[in-house]
Amino acid sequence: MQINIALSGFGHVGRAFAGLLAEKHTDLTRRYGLDMRLVLAANSRGAAHDGGGLDLKFLESLAQGGELADMPGFTEGLTGPEAVALSRASVWVEATPSHAKASFEPGMSNIKKALGDGMHAVTLCKGPLVHNFAEIMGIAQAAGTKVKYSGATAAALPTVDVAVNSLAGSRITSIEGILNGTSNFILTCMEREGLSFAQGLAEAQRRGIAEPEPSLDVEGWDTAYKLLIIANTLFEKTFSLSDMAVEGITRVGAADLKEAGNSGGTLKLVGSAELRKEACVLKTGPKFLPFEHPLAGVSGTTKGIHFVSDTMGPLTVIGGYSNPRGAAAAALKDIISLYML
Amino acid sequence: MQINIALSGFGHVGRAFAGLLAEKHTDLTRRYGLDMRLVLAANSRGAAHDGGGLDLKFLESLAQGGELADMPGFTEGLTGPEAVALSRASVWVEATPSHAKASFEPGMSNIKKALGDGMHAVTLCKGPLVHNFAEIMGIAQAAGTKVKYSGATAAALPTVDVAVNSLAGSRITSIEGILNGTSNFILTCMEREGLSFAQGLAEAQRRGIAEPEPSLDVEGWDTAYKLLIIANTLFEKTFSLSDMAVEGITRVGAADLKEAGNSGGTLKLVGSAELRKEACVLKTGPKFLPFEHPLAGVSGTTKGIHFVSDTMGPLTVIGGYSNPRGAAAAALKDIISLYML
Repeated sequence: MQINIALSGFGHVGRAFAGLLAEKHTDLTRRYGLDMRLVLAANSRGAAHDGGGLDLKFLESLAQGGELADMPGFTEGLTGPEAVALSRASVWVEATPSHAKASFEPGMSNIKKALGDGMHAVTLCKGPLVHNFAEIMGIAQAAGTKVKYSGATAAALPTVDVAVNSLAGSRITSIEGILNGTSNFILTCMEREGLSFAQGLAEAQRRGIAEPEPSLDVEGWDTAYKLLIIANTLFEKTFSLSDMAVEGITRVGAADLKEAGNSGGTLKLVGSAELRKEACVLKTGPKFLPFEHPLAGVSGTTKGIHFVSDTMGPLTVIGGYSNPRGAAAAALKDIISLYML
Repeated sequence: MQINIALSGFGHVGRAFAGLLAEKHTDLTRRYGLDMRLVLAANSRGAAHDGGGLDLKFLESLAQGGELADMPGFTEGLTGPEAVALSRASVWVEATPSHAKASFEPGMSNIKKALGDGMHAVTLCKGPLVHNFAEIMGIAQAAGTKVKYSGATAAALPTVDVAVNSLAGSRITSIEGILNGTSNFILTCMEREGLSFAQGLAEAQRRGIAEPEPSLDVEGWDTAYKLLIIANTLFEKTFSLSDMAVEGITRVGAADLKEAGNSGGTLKLVGSAELRKEACVLKTGPKFLPFEHPLAGVSGTTKGIHFVSDTMGPLTVIGGYSNPRGAAAAALKDIISLYML
């Protein structure tokens, strides 16, 4: 079965995804019978298009930092809904950044257009789901298309699909997640080396783990975004950011971590959702986890999520690469799940 | 959509499954649109049958220890393939015990008949899959039916479905699992209290965790069975028990655990599969895990599994109830997955 894929966004993750399509092409065809072709690749300047599938060698060169504009068939200015329409893809993959609190374009317009035109959408970009979850799901339902977003909900750490597939039929009563690798790395540094937040952040930046402008990670927003999308998927209500208290780790000090240790635990940046009677309480902030808590040992850039359900009890998932390759693999998994699972 | 289910086996797990169908009936209809009816319930003596679905109140009473033979519509001697044919179910659930090394009946005959008659099969019973994996899959493929077996591969701890769904598209290169709650409980007791194996076993038996005849658990067979089924699902080869070295925990002593602790780790009963070049090496036995290994902290009756894959890296799943309710929930999940995922 031939699957035509269009990809929007050529940051680290978009490049890794293009590379993965080339690397895995033969294997995916053999194992799943899915012949995945990248028919359109778009960045903010334009798009390369080939209805028969862009050359695999070119995808490999993109993964290694090649320029999309050097691609034969690149059309300057071909972007947004016009590119979506031209692609005639089966699956639209959105890998543009939409990290800024206010901005969720071009992802939002692309995804809406793709779904409305009968394509499935796989998004690594959180903004549209954070700001317009119900609207996007409504468009997909009306069009008979599907939206998958593992790449926007902790990527190589499976969160939504474990809850939806592995806990199917159970009632999830609480979720706790260490969902941001950067913050967790900083807290781990602070705890182990007795550093201040500023020192921990500097160390994370020196290692290329924290962005030069780290506020979305360290102020808790990235965690809150992921938790919100997970909660909107799993609970039968649509929440918005204003339903959640959000605090980051900027006010955590070495003394707080030391005190937590003396009290038999540690401090982690936790996004949590808890069913209390009929209400679901969402929260993002530093949380004391006793050492016996299954997430207490999750350190460095590793992420983890802990579910409690009525019939299957406590379940913890930890790990998955916190890098562009892991995120690209999460998007690839989503595409496979559209056709195989 | 009405799903007619037939259930064979009324031990603790079969009873819990019947109870769960009653408890969750309204919720499953609302959330998934699946109206699950138990149309046939069989034990070794006979079966109760009602094409419109057995009474939910009766299912609840079965869950609480009621006798199947007291059910209106119970037919003495209605068992095996005859019961399968009569059920005309959509899904056959096999919850008979088949723990003994040599025996895999009546599960094997029931499952083959059900699959051949166009039913999906959900099995909590390991024997048929351990001894005839390829044959069962072949029958299902020829009949266009499916076999699901979460309940035979660590039950409420998701193993196969995490690998198949959450790691779709990746290449799994190694698996390590603490797959037997009883053995893990005994090792945890031995380690914490400095007990011998015999003392640890006695403690587990006193608490109702170990069976009076515990050899399948403590000699490693239960772990080996689960690992074998998982490996046969995930790797493109059919292995048999003779491909695996199997050792249990009966020769582990308090001194071994102490020595492991002094060496910075612990001993666990681990079932492992490792891809080495083209071969896959399967092994079950006590294994030293350094404290930083993600499964080192899995204690008591808790189970866990650790995967490594090429694109998503290390992934660890820990938990899930180790009880009949958790196993029943795993079978229920399998049924949902047949229709929804």
